Amino acid sequence: MALTIGVDIGGTKILGAVVDPHGEVLAQTRRDTPAGDTGEIVRRIAAVIRELRDSHEVDSIGIGAAGWFDAARKNILFAPNLAWRNEPLFDLIQREIDIPIMLENDGNVAAWAEFVYGAARDADDSMVLITVGTGIGSGLVIGGRLVRGGNGIAGEIGHTVAVPGGHLCGCGRLGCLEQYASGNALVRFAQQAAKEDPDRATELLRLAGGTVAAINGPLVTTAAQAGDAASLAAFDQIGYWLAGGLADVVQVLDPQVLVVGGGVIEAGDLLIGPVRRYFPEALAQRGRLPLGEVRPALLGNTAGVVGAADLARRN
Amino acid sequence: MALTIGVDIGGTKILGAVVDPHGEVLAQTRRDTPAGDTGEIVRRIAAVIRELRDSHEVDSIGIGAAGWFDAARKNILFAPNLAWRNEPLFDLIQREIDIPIMLENDGNVAAWAEFVYGAARDADDSMVLITVGTGIGSGLVIGGRLVRGGNGIAGEIGHTVAVPGGHLCGCGRLGCLEQYASGNALVRFAQQAAKEDPDRATELLRLAGGTVAAINGPLVTTAAQAGDAASLAAFDQIGYWLAGGLADVVQVLDPQVLVVGGGVIEAGDLLIGPVRRYFPEALAQRGRLPLGEVRPALLGNTAGVVGAADLARRN
Repeated sequence: MALTIGVDIGGTKILGAVVDPHGEVLAQTRRDTPAGDTGEIVRRIAAVIRELRDSHEVDSIGIGAAGWFDAARKNILFAPNLAWRNEPLFDLIQREIDIPIMLENDGNVAAWAEFVYGAARDADDSMVLITVGTGIGSGLVIGGRLVRGGNGIAGEIGHTVAVPGGHLCGCGRLGCLEQYASGNALVRFAQQAAKEDPDRATELLRLAGGTVAAINGPLVTTAAQAGDAASLAAFDQIGYWLAGGLADVVQVLDPQVLVVGGGVIEAGDLLIGPVRRYFPEALAQRGRLPLGEVRPALLGNTAGVVGAADLARRN
Repeated sequence: MALTIGVDIGGTKILGAVVDPHGEVLAQTRRDTPAGDTGEIVRRIAAVIRELRDSHEVDSIGIGAAGWFDAARKNILFAPNLAWRNEPLFDLIQREIDIPIMLENDGNVAAWAEFVYGAARDADDSMVLITVGTGIGSGLVIGGRLVRGGNGIAGEIGHTVAVPGGHLCGCGRLGCLEQYASGNALVRFAQQAAKEDPDRATELLRLAGGTVAAINGPLVTTAAQAGDAASLAAFDQIGYWLAGGLADVVQVLDPQVLVVGGGVIEAGDLLIGPVRRYFPEALAQRGRLPLGEVRPALLGNTAGVVGAADLARRN
């Protein structure tokens, strides 16, 4: 049974796993990501791979990373959370490892995993994954194939404009969806509500020690679960904007399934509830037309390694 | 040399053409569209086809129509400008004609024609066509294949939201791109300017006989060509919103080429000029990344018949 390794390079950790042809994780290991030291990142990726292959015979290695690759997927042009700028990542890693490697954007590998093994495994044509974490990531499958784009940088749904002239985004545009539907947006909405109307945020403020600036994502989730009005409203707000973003995706791509993943989805119905309520409202004219279904992601934080390993196997 | 027939069913006319394997139109004919009489539309489509096949031997027939088809492309679910509601168009036409027919959305056939024979013929992976006429149409090619969507209704870029809570669109949403970047929007912007600041619209108002309500698309184009300030500003406004829409398409799909077509493109640089100016501005963060090129469509009003005929040949 041919095994492959998947590696997921995130802003805080490097996760590696040995994956079988059914998408099952047989072994995994991790290292912290030294975000500012590009040489050390490559050494730790190589260390993760060597540790896994010492115990398992593998044919190939797939590596997912948060960044924009060139169309040949050899060089990483830019990474928002790591120090890579025009980094020849493929050559640097392949030099350390004598098994064929393959690079891919992290949103793409997670989307592929959910399409093949996860929430959209019954779809045969098309799905879109949107991950809601600190920021917003995404990946597209159309016609049964991953969409990489003409220049290798498709799938940045978080950086389409939700509000013209709105909040400045780290990407340079004003009003990106990421500024209204991400984990960061959840915290901003909750902080604003706690400041302007503290009576509706008593539980949230209690958890935050009475300090608005101490409010973070996990506290908003905990407070919302306890019925804190301001925290519930903040989930409702990001759900509203996310539903609008999904509705626009439907207008353009009409996918069979829309999968919502990422850290914030662990809050369960707090996010998916509002999304499912606002999504059909945002598509009033689709009443008479079929519509892709919105589902929570299934694979959690192993989606990256499973997708990367599967793509390496098919490469 | 195998010939096929392409038919383009629009809101005002039914255009048919015999097309060769190089995309050349050998013969064409047309009828008016009886928009409200579904039986008569089918009879006229059949008449167009019979007239063309009397003089040319053809293998198959492709038919493009402005409407949403089901995923099997047999039934037209809804047509915004014609009386079709759950119409079994495939069976109705095939019953009249003993050569294999194929149905396709009109934006899709035009996009396919521009990809194979037109403005994007050097692209091998991906292109997006946006047509700016009375409304906004579009079609997508990804991975060298037409994108039809999981339910057959992909490519409605004109019905993504440009302005949350903005102008009511015929589709039922508020603030669709079509309300800000179409020929109808051009007229609305020009009428508003002529009403609020007639001194900047002297040429436009002269052409319209002094009546704001008489301002239409051709008059705005003529006045803009003569330097009328209000008319130039109206083109600038739709160009601004169109550039924003194209920038969002780039973020999601990263196509090799973006083609702008439709009736309004006949105004030449009046529209493409502002689009080309605002498009890179809307993608500030793409300074370091490659970007698809914006080009005017090449095939004009034969794109529909050429694309439909070519798709029928490949079917």
